Amino acid sequence: MKHGPLFITFEGPEGAGKSTQVRHLAAKLTATGIETVVTREPGGTPASDAIRRVILDPQLEMNALTEFLLYAASRAQHVDAVIAPALAAGKTVLSDRFAAASVAYQGYGRGLELGFIDTLSARVTQGLRPGLTILLDLDPHIGLERVAERGHPDRLEQADLEFHLRVRAGFRELAQADHHSWVVFDALQAEKALAAAIWETVRTRLFS
Amino acid sequence: MKHGPLFITFEGPEGAGKSTQVRHLAAKLTATGIETVVTREPGGTPASDAIRRVILDPQLEMNALTEFLLYAASRAQHVDAVIAPALAAGKTVLSDRFAAASVAYQGYGRGLELGFIDTLSARVTQGLRPGLTILLDLDPHIGLERVAERGHPDRLEQADLEFHLRVRAGFRELAQADHHSWVVFDALQAEKALAAAIWETVRTRLFS
Repeated sequence: MKHGPLFITFEGPEGAGKSTQVRHLAAKLTATGIETVVTREPGGTPASDAIRRVILDPQLEMNALTEFLLYAASRAQHVDAVIAPALAAGKTVLSDRFAAASVAYQGYGRGLELGFIDTLSARVTQGLRPGLTILLDLDPHIGLERVAERGHPDRLEQADLEFHLRVRAGFRELAQADHHSWVVFDALQAEKALAAAIWETVRTRLFS
Repeated sequence: MKHGPLFITFEGPEGAGKSTQVRHLAAKLTATGIETVVTREPGGTPASDAIRRVILDPQLEMNALTEFLLYAASRAQHVDAVIAPALAAGKTVLSDRFAAASVAYQGYGRGLELGFIDTLSARVTQGLRPGLTILLDLDPHIGLERVAERGHPDRLEQADLEFHLRVRAGFRELAQADHHSWVVFDALQAEKALAAAIWETVRTRLFS
């Protein structure tokens, strides 16, 4: 039952059920006696939450570079004030989205160069990389339908289907390029089956 | 009386009278028949104004990198949506602060590496550099007194005297390193004398 602190991120489109699965996994970890910090991006600190409101505001127009720099600003504070200290204190950290989301959304989705994103991200994250990234893969047609049912789509949710298809392709390429850290799950599975599959993956990494 | 579009920026500390002098210069330029766009940083677009409110909020804690990335995000939108189009349309642009402020405040003031700031700034500004930068130089002791009299200091105005001394030194070094583009004015001069001196500098550049 020995394990070091683990940094686990959830990625995937709007409507894939990330926050629900983060909750399930956090409950399992806590029940197993593992001190767990749950956080999300954009957000996670008061400044990052204020930046989140700017990023998602459907009234504001901004270009891809501004959008990426806002995510980067939010992430720099989040890593500095929340993620790095928690890991240093031996806690396991679950984050609903992290740096890979910028590669998928601002890189593949908006067309910003991947090299530029990677270089700035390395600095912003202080070189911190998730030990495990759980990708909840979902057809954007279905994700956008779920978002529409929920109402009040934010600025990124309002982007067109083509954008979300590029984002999905980006996430899948990232997962394929790093089999060791990424595990892909079909987000259409029933909530509890999905939670069980995710827990099995995490449990194996923690206790083997 | 021939002249191309001119990009003029004002730099200097809080309380130096930048916005007043921007107004005086804009009035002179307009009276001379030169179409002039007045703008400011952080701000200048709805998204940039929203970012400005986050940057200056005295309730929010953020590190130097986050602060710089917010200025950069705001600036990327400002250049893209306001400054570059105005210059392309042949207008003269006056901006109350621009990229040099990040060198002085986040570089000299907060200690972020100047090379990193320059590299990201070049991208954010699309390589656009002011043809003329007017530095209103002021002893921080006096600047901070003026700000205190005004009340409600913002997050940067609340930083300590040592910080503002480093910022002043930074501005002066930038001005010394680029005699062609920077002109330094003593901000303690009477408002109208200062306006006349600035106008003389600008007039010479426009009509000679």
